[in-house]
Amino acid sequence: MRIGFIGGTGIEAKGLALRFASAGASVILGSRAKERALQTASQYNKLLGEPSISGLTNQEMLPLVELAFLTVPFDQATAAIDSCRDFFTTDQILVDVTVPVRFDQDGPEYIEQEAGSNAELIARRVPEGIHLVCAFKTIPARVLAELQTELRCDVFVCSDSEDARQRLIEVIRLIPTLRPLDAGPLRMARTLERMSVLAIRLNRTYKKIGARYYVQGI
Amino acid sequence: MRIGFIGGTGIEAKGLALRFASAGASVILGSRAKERALQTASQYNKLLGEPSISGLTNQEMLPLVELAFLTVPFDQATAAIDSCRDFFTTDQILVDVTVPVRFDQDGPEYIEQEAGSNAELIARRVPEGIHLVCAFKTIPARVLAELQTELRCDVFVCSDSEDARQRLIEVIRLIPTLRPLDAGPLRMARTLERMSVLAIRLNRTYKKIGARYYVQGI
Repeated sequence: MRIGFIGGTGIEAKGLALRFASAGASVILGSRAKERALQTASQYNKLLGEPSISGLTNQEMLPLVELAFLTVPFDQATAAIDSCRDFFTTDQILVDVTVPVRFDQDGPEYIEQEAGSNAELIARRVPEGIHLVCAFKTIPARVLAELQTELRCDVFVCSDSEDARQRLIEVIRLIPTLRPLDAGPLRMARTLERMSVLAIRLNRTYKKIGARYYVQGI
Repeated sequence: MRIGFIGGTGIEAKGLALRFASAGASVILGSRAKERALQTASQYNKLLGEPSISGLTNQEMLPLVELAFLTVPFDQATAAIDSCRDFFTTDQILVDVTVPVRFDQDGPEYIEQEAGSNAELIARRVPEGIHLVCAFKTIPARVLAELQTELRCDVFVCSDSEDARQRLIEVIRLIPTLRPLDAGPLRMARTLERMSVLAIRLNRTYKKIGARYYVQGI
């Protein structure tokens, strides 16, 4: 399994890249600047003790992977897709993990989206034949990046492509103690993005960093 | 602690009434029809083996309790409040547990609210001096009503009154294995109501009845 990251040098990608590489996947970090992708890959390989992660530009990475995570800040997502438009390959899965949030004095706030959710906004820009799936929206990037932390939580997966949803669910099973759950169609991202903001709020209120959801009874 | 229910004869109230009565609270079921409230109270007292629950009209019940749950169907909430308008007492807490959901062939769907959430719609009708708090929106009524089921999950509590939120959190602690979490201001109901629909969807997909949330890391 070859997994890529559009915007692979930031905190959002870090935990996913390291955990998938640890689980045996071949990981390629993409970046606008190849040099940064190479540097970050080299750092991560030192952490892992093996050279499982490589670095390329976003455009070089895309034709080489079956599955690409979109790990740019939420308001750069559509521009990032546009810059990669000619480099996607048919039947590829694009995984959106973005959450539109702003920080007021009153705490984190969900930024209401005219499209309903950032995922639905992104969906309008994804090329034909590419399957958009949402996942990992509700798990804090910092917790994913702490490799010593057992996640013991759920990943809610939603997409309008039933097949892509099931394919991603199988891939997520590679990561120990993480349970992928089928959350239905893409518009369920309206719920998942808001749940992420609730988790950030709970972290602040209770002075924690790792609030994440586990569904009892399933 | 005296706890009342506006619309206390349905499934929404059942688990809450039984669990709070088991925990030592004095519980009054309200109803439009007093006879029905009395019958239901009598049934519940048989289940409990003690007469901790009584039945009255909604209007008779309200002046007698510190805290009233609004356990009517979501689209009857504002009418129920209007019918009780003159019977609330100052500083009373009104707990909204409603979720606007419809069932399509494609599964359960959240009914988008012009006010943002059903809670915010209800807030417009609550008399001055009464504190609206949301809680229990994400826990299936059927699971609450199965007294033998240990809940082991979280109750997300939101309100624009910090004091009322903290008071309700203390009351919720009466129920074993249930953890109340401070979810912030009333508009967080937009998240909680949608989470309820996600839980219903998960129940259907995985053929369960008790999907409910526990937040790891808090």
